[in-house]
Amino acid sequence: MNDVRRAPLTPVELEQALRQIGAERYHNLHPFHRLLHGGKLNRGQVQAWALNRYYYQSRIPAKDASLLARLPTADLRRAWRSRLEDHDGTAPGTGGVERWLRLAQGLGLERAYVLSTDGLLPGTRFAVDAYVHFVSERSVLEAVASSLTELFSPNIIAERVSGMLSNYAFVTPEMLAYFTPRLTQAPRDSDFALAYVQEHAVTREQQEAVLAALRFKCDVLWAQLDALHFAYVEPGYIPPGAFVPAGGI
Amino acid sequence: MNDVRRAPLTPVELEQALRQIGAERYHNLHPFHRLLHGGKLNRGQVQAWALNRYYYQSRIPAKDASLLARLPTADLRRAWRSRLEDHDGTAPGTGGVERWLRLAQGLGLERAYVLSTDGLLPGTRFAVDAYVHFVSERSVLEAVASSLTELFSPNIIAERVSGMLSNYAFVTPEMLAYFTPRLTQAPRDSDFALAYVQEHAVTREQQEAVLAALRFKCDVLWAQLDALHFAYVEPGYIPPGAFVPAGGI
Repeated sequence: MNDVRRAPLTPVELEQALRQIGAERYHNLHPFHRLLHGGKLNRGQVQAWALNRYYYQSRIPAKDASLLARLPTADLRRAWRSRLEDHDGTAPGTGGVERWLRLAQGLGLERAYVLSTDGLLPGTRFAVDAYVHFVSERSVLEAVASSLTELFSPNIIAERVSGMLSNYAFVTPEMLAYFTPRLTQAPRDSDFALAYVQEHAVTREQQEAVLAALRFKCDVLWAQLDALHFAYVEPGYIPPGAFVPAGGI
Repeated sequence: MNDVRRAPLTPVELEQALRQIGAERYHNLHPFHRLLHGGKLNRGQVQAWALNRYYYQSRIPAKDASLLARLPTADLRRAWRSRLEDHDGTAPGTGGVERWLRLAQGLGLERAYVLSTDGLLPGTRFAVDAYVHFVSERSVLEAVASSLTELFSPNIIAERVSGMLSNYAFVTPEMLAYFTPRLTQAPRDSDFALAYVQEHAVTREQQEAVLAALRFKCDVLWAQLDALHFAYVEPGYIPPGAFVPAGGI
């Protein structure tokens, strides 16, 4: 799989290889998501998910800014800047990070507690920080490629919204407002990133680096669900200092 | 706990606060260690532990070198350099990293496979890399403090060696050669690091940073066992691409 001496892939073959990674490693396959979407979690477990996932959301602008700082042209920077606008908004109280905070608050978590990240699982922090470090330390090509999990997100979002609304009485459409704009933002962003890697990954070595970056990013998402599942579902060993739901798990 | 406006602790109180963190958060308390030391794991599970823990061992010289590079005096650098000598040895085939490789090989793993880190749990990689980043990015005081889990390691090592030898027919004293020198190295190193933080953490703010660094390091060790336990014990969900023991789990 990592034999960089083989012939380069065509752009179409590269896309197929990327989509194959998603089919094998994207976190929609994780058992935690089946439980979340299928209504099998209690409110405390959904709180734990929202609390931990908040840290991921909150660091996305940091990773995008560190990449933006290294993009060489105004055209590229302008395209990438739209991600910052999506997440940080155009005015106080707008943007994806704020909408995620409202989801957490709608689930009954204190806003200040979520912002503090005091109750975060260490496994969440380490996985998310690994992503931010990856984007700031690897090549621009690998950094762009690591965003390509968005190729696979519209399906999971549609499944999540319908599943959570139909299965949890404590979830309202307003609480899930984060996800609606993502259904159009994610395809716009992943179309751009896919075209970028298809244009710039021309040697087999570059293409293998792109594929490895997407596998890495799938690991980042998967490990967050591993940590959640272990602490809050089975066997249910919450690490010292992490969030303990008021009603237990 | 984080009120930096309170009066500074005395050196004795600081040591007590550090030891209290160990009593609450050191990974000897993790259920995986009870299983490992009590003979409750099969050979494949012990292989998974050795394989993943190898990555931690292999990165210790990187974190020590990044700290060494920032120490201001020859006295400090010479003292810290002994850690590099312990881990990387004084000649090919010596040192702690090599001894850990021999433990992994003694358990039946291929040396090249261990070195490749191909089968590593992403949770292991993210936790270990978080430690290396912490030491290279935080203050020298925090970096030194994060080594203080060694205050607690002699007890766990003694328990591990006796427990593994008496409970696993596939473990020999030669395979556990890594641990014997650690029984004298760890106290020497932790005595030095404790004296350093007692001398240099004089304000309450510095002391709180020291305590937070030790909590962070406990999280790094704990999260590695969480990932192992989740993948290889219960519920036993091995992430895509990670090591699968030949005989199952």
